[in-house]
Amino acid sequence: MNFASDNTAGVSEPIMMALAAANQGFAPSYGADDLTAGVKRRLAEVFEREVEVYLVATGTAANALSISTFAEPWTAVLCSHNAHVLTDECGAVEMFSAGARLVGVDGDHAKIDVAALADLLDHWPSGRPHVVQPSGLSISQASEFGAVWSPDDVGALGEIARRHGLRLHMDGARFANAVAALDCAPADVTWRAGVDILSFGATKNGALGAEAIVVFAPELARTLTKRRMRAGQLISKGRFVAAQLLAYLEKDHWLDLAAHANAMAMRLGKGIAASTSARLAVPVEANEVFAWLAAVDVARLREEGAMFYEWQGAASGVDSAGVPSDARLVRFVASFATDEGQVDRLLGLLGTGKDRVAAQ
Amino acid sequence: MNFASDNTAGVSEPIMMALAAANQGFAPSYGADDLTAGVKRRLAEVFEREVEVYLVATGTAANALSISTFAEPWTAVLCSHNAHVLTDECGAVEMFSAGARLVGVDGDHAKIDVAALADLLDHWPSGRPHVVQPSGLSISQASEFGAVWSPDDVGALGEIARRHGLRLHMDGARFANAVAALDCAPADVTWRAGVDILSFGATKNGALGAEAIVVFAPELARTLTKRRMRAGQLISKGRFVAAQLLAYLEKDHWLDLAAHANAMAMRLGKGIAASTSARLAVPVEANEVFAWLAAVDVARLREEGAMFYEWQGAASGVDSAGVPSDARLVRFVASFATDEGQVDRLLGLLGTGKDRVAAQ
Amino acid sequence: MNFASDNTAGVSEPIMMALAAANQGFAPSYGADDLTAGVKRRLAEVFEREVEVYLVATGTAANALSISTFAEPWTAVLCSHNAHVLTDECGAVEMFSAGARLVGVDGDHAKIDVAALADLLDHWPSGRPHVVQPSGLSISQASEFGAVWSPDDVGALGEIARRHGLRLHMDGARFANAVAALDCAPADVTWRAGVDILSFGATKNGALGAEAIVVFAPELARTLTKRRMRAGQLISKGRFVAAQLLAYLEKDHWLDLAAHANAMAMRLGKGIAASTSARLAVPVEANEVFAWLAAVDVARLREEGAMFYEWQGAASGVDSAGVPSDARLVRFVASFATDEGQVDRLLGLLGTGKDRVAAQ
Amino acid sequence: MNFASDNTAGVSEPIMMALAAANQGFAPSYGADDLTAGVKRRLAEVFEREVEVYLVATGTAANALSISTFAEPWTAVLCSHNAHVLTDECGAVEMFSAGARLVGVDGDHAKIDVAALADLLDHWPSGRPHVVQPSGLSISQASEFGAVWSPDDVGALGEIARRHGLRLHMDGARFANAVAALDCAPADVTWRAGVDILSFGATKNGALGAEAIVVFAPELARTLTKRRMRAGQLISKGRFVAAQLLAYLEKDHWLDLAAHANAMAMRLGKGIAASTSARLAVPVEANEVFAWLAAVDVARLREEGAMFYEWQGAASGVDSAGVPSDARLVRFVASFATDEGQVDRLLGLLGTGKDRVAAQ
Repeated sequence: MNFASDNTAGVSEPIMMALAAANQGFAPSYGADDLTAGVKRRLAEVFEREVEVYLVATGTAANALSISTFAEPWTAVLCSHNAHVLTDECGAVEMFSAGARLVGVDGDHAKIDVAALADLLDHWPSGRPHVVQPSGLSISQASEFGAVWSPDDVGALGEIARRHGLRLHMDGARFANAVAALDCAPADVTWRAGVDILSFGATKNGALGAEAIVVFAPELARTLTKRRMRAGQLISKGRFVAAQLLAYLEKDHWLDLAAHANAMAMRLGKGIAASTSARLAVPVEANEVFAWLAAVDVARLREEGAMFYEWQGAASGVDSAGVPSDARLVRFVASFATDEGQVDRLLGLLGTGKDRVAAQ
Repeated sequence: MNFASDNTAGVSEPIMMALAAANQGFAPSYGADDLTAGVKRRLAEVFEREVEVYLVATGTAANALSISTFAEPWTAVLCSHNAHVLTDECGAVEMFSAGARLVGVDGDHAKIDVAALADLLDHWPSGRPHVVQPSGLSISQASEFGAVWSPDDVGALGEIARRHGLRLHMDGARFANAVAALDCAPADVTWRAGVDILSFGATKNGALGAEAIVVFAPELARTLTKRRMRAGQLISKGRFVAAQLLAYLEKDHWLDLAAHANAMAMRLGKGIAASTSARLAVPVEANEVFAWLAAVDVARLREEGAMFYEWQGAASGVDSAGVPSDARLVRFVASFATDEGQVDRLLGLLGTGKDRVAAQ
Repeated sequence: MNFASDNTAGVSEPIMMALAAANQGFAPSYGADDLTAGVKRRLAEVFEREVEVYLVATGTAANALSISTFAEPWTAVLCSHNAHVLTDECGAVEMFSAGARLVGVDGDHAKIDVAALADLLDHWPSGRPHVVQPSGLSISQASEFGAVWSPDDVGALGEIARRHGLRLHMDGARFANAVAALDCAPADVTWRAGVDILSFGATKNGALGAEAIVVFAPELARTLTKRRMRAGQLISKGRFVAAQLLAYLEKDHWLDLAAHANAMAMRLGKGIAASTSARLAVPVEANEVFAWLAAVDVARLREEGAMFYEWQGAASGVDSAGVPSDARLVRFVASFATDEGQVDRLLGLLGTGKDRVAAQ
Repeated sequence: MNFASDNTAGVSEPIMMALAAANQGFAPSYGADDLTAGVKRRLAEVFEREVEVYLVATGTAANALSISTFAEPWTAVLCSHNAHVLTDECGAVEMFSAGARLVGVDGDHAKIDVAALADLLDHWPSGRPHVVQPSGLSISQASEFGAVWSPDDVGALGEIARRHGLRLHMDGARFANAVAALDCAPADVTWRAGVDILSFGATKNGALGAEAIVVFAPELARTLTKRRMRAGQLISKGRFVAAQLLAYLEKDHWLDLAAHANAMAMRLGKGIAASTSARLAVPVEANEVFAWLAAVDVARLREEGAMFYEWQGAASGVDSAGVPSDARLVRFVASFATDEGQVDRLLGLLGTGKDRVAAQ
């Protein structure tokens, strides 16, 4: 019952086989190999347009490098208060951008409220040298709380970005989960909606370690070759990262993996919604389940070996009306490796709840 | 005939098998898994002492993170003019250290001349706020020109470092090749000789992508957890990096791989030394061969499909007395995947040389 | 009627005379002169203890250098949402610290609410490498909204800082105004209350350009000589900055200047409080007056040549209950050069207000 | 006998008077005042073209900010091995540029040898992501060893810069001394010769503290407003810096001051050249004298109260043929405040030298 994160799962069988298959003879290093060229072509098909592609080692690097292409050091990038770049990357954006600032914006479910964003931008002090100026937005697809941005949702932000001369970055650590949930063309929820640059993650969804920066606004690619090298993110045996991505993108393998993870989360979410002892804190839209649990249930789950996170810090943007003050906000993440048995066993461990969270 | 670099080779069979074996069930992410703990224990055995270990994605990251632990932004780190950190990492040290300076020091074969170093340090302007002060040394083992530092060589630098209050970093991208060539205890050429922190590379010697920072001076580890995260170098599915290193270190696999590569380079070096149309530019001590070739030979080798680098830029620190001005300095690198047939075929392509480099 | 800022005033007569007096013969540059040594001695008297002193050119530099002494790049510094370092220094802290983060905390009148701060710190996520950790607090004395921190106020924060292992920085751009208002020993509101490092400003209070970093926690001084030089903040003809500060500190000249400015602000504040057409947004405690004015009054004041700022952006932390939505938040700053005539003329321009802000 | 530096002198009378005159009433802060606007107009006249002007507090800041406008972090800026930016600014360029690299180039008298520069650029490794690429040149006018670049000298570098797509920065800490020595139009030795951006120094030549960045290539000005603010270099009471520069530029006051300093240096240089106990290490062209002295003379001068620097570190680029190994390289700097009596007294202290430096 490992629901700690989707990155506690291993590697999907087709991706593992692709790694073995790539281990033939010599190949140019540093991304000059044929497989890496193939990834670029394949992503162009997936996104229905020319793209620039930069493979890197981690999602944090993909995010920080992407944002650094537009965030000059004296500028601000706006994101959810709960954005991974803000809360969980230890200042990587600040490091890679040489000091740009991340500014949290309100919104439910770790998304950005359009009205709050517009208000913030409309009242941003300008005209004096003293104030950092906004240069971009960063959104997570799916969000840190597992919410999904529809094409219209993204488009609304893209429109604001365009109006204010801002760039739009998408942290797609769980991009596959979002696309699988939306059942839309990847293009519709990215560049057609105004996204300039995307962190395209595969690691959380069955790869060993493979992340790609996908650049839709070609002028943002100018500095990336140097930035990536300088950041120690140019993989020497690049063919093995490329091989993963090719297998990942082959015949919708990526969407199949994600759809399974989403279905497991949905199953878990339904069980919690039906439970008398727990309640959902965020609607389940992708592969993450955020729920309020009684402390006694948290303890019992742990005793039985379930792995999951309790949310530390303030929990803004979740549904908390009527939740008892001693309830715990927990996160369960499903992955391609989660099965129904794990989900059902977890649900079976929830208390009867007469005096618990859902009883409110 | 791929002699372009040891990173054009693939992955050794035992390491590939270890990757597959690690792909079982769930495991904690971000280095909290058992395999990662095992790597730390294994490296403690290899180095015969407690060590702190930080796995990262690339050698450039290992170097820049290591150096950043001691190089405050207003300090200088001294290294060979030909050091990889200075010539081939696109300013990673400057980025990770927030602006420390790399200062090249003279020396043959991309090593550091002890007298030149001592002279530089003895005359370093001090006592005024205006001048950056030295904080450390960085040496490559083996050097960028394939030379090996003996325990005494390292010890001489360690002694200078100690006297001047400097830290000593070793870039061990080819550490295995050096240790195999020296046939010494890894401890003798590192911490016993004064090395504080080591970039322990495995990728160039048969791993898929696995580099470790090995910290001998425990106080240097204080900031590394945060530095690594912030640099986007904390691998989420860390078990797969750890699995590589465990296989690499199992039963001297790492030294076997390196010894083979070294033997192939030696064979190539002997052939060149015996040739009438080429000559060695640096004695062959590990797995790299630097040689002067006639332009016509360079062209013929390329036509026949040989892959190798011509050295760009100034070639200081190589043996060039009597070399014709139109000779080309080329580098051949052997790896665990190089075989005698490749070496001999390359040698067979060298000209008869009556009017060529070796004829001088 | 220039109430735009206290830095629109010129230089006090004694300070101007000191500049002329310092212009005799040669003097060592870069702070090795006798006057600079005298400033350190004088500040030791003022603060009743040994201090380290670093003269710099601007308040922004004093703040950013001070904070950089403790804010490692992967840490956060907590301050008011309205702190000058956060809102008006264009990312200087981020630049000087190589990427540390400023985190806004709630509080009235641009101070920090102790309970909000304690809550934030108590719930700060820890134990994982992903999250930046707090390293310090920064408070402005007087605050950006002209509020003053009493010794007890500062002490409460100092206690929290001590408990959480944080450093406490005080931005004293208007330190003189605060001390004059409090009529306390400078020591009582700084190091005795837990302040580790102080930006001691003189420019806004009658100097030409003279700011000092005063270090109470000696270990924070270790890097400042290099940091200041590297930031282009080591003044070459330092005697002329030192001369200003000596005159400033001579016979309480600094407190006299500040007391006058405070009195002028108080007179203005009383007038506004008594007005039927405007109301105070923050109690007047030092030399700044924040008030709600009707748009028509703002326009009339401007027509009559009054200089002042309208506050842009969100106005958190001010008293706004019952203020009409079209009222404007404006700031008037008094300086040593403000006189009663200017204040009274401004007050005379306020409307009768029957239908205006104060009529609510 | 203070020859330690030109910044040990005080402030010229007209500049001191201008400071007092500027101290009238209120003026907008942060450079929005009329005097600052006047400086821009006046510099446009001096340089016979439109310029952008940014006043800052120190020469180090002027240099680092200027270079940061073109030196992206993964690039290199080439300068003399003895350039102030490289040897005496404690890594300010690295800080302000977020990690760009300074690369020393050979040349006599702290200038850059054109052939050495061209060779370096022609052999710069390119085409791989690993290598930092040159983005600019920085030269000092006058050089760190007091040599002057003629319009043709600068033009030769400007031509190389143009050919290689590099920017050309001039560190004009002693620009006035150079222009006075050359007796040329300021335009001829700057933008007409290819200079893109100039650090225009006044402090060393009689100002209290006034440095200007003068931008000839308008596209380089895009980021300077933000960069200056963020660096803590936007002076709040800017009128007092502007007033200095207006007085400095009034009726060639700047050139008169510099011409006097140059004449004093020339007098000193002639005396040394005629001496039997010392010899010039660099021809005297502006206001600095570099000479070889016997240790005994150095000691005697110090005993008699003469102030000057002994050069620490390697002394490349000076005339040292035949100089005894125990001779000391010393620097004497003349300023507007140096008089003939000081010079002659110094010369009178030199030994008879039978067995000394000049006796070789």
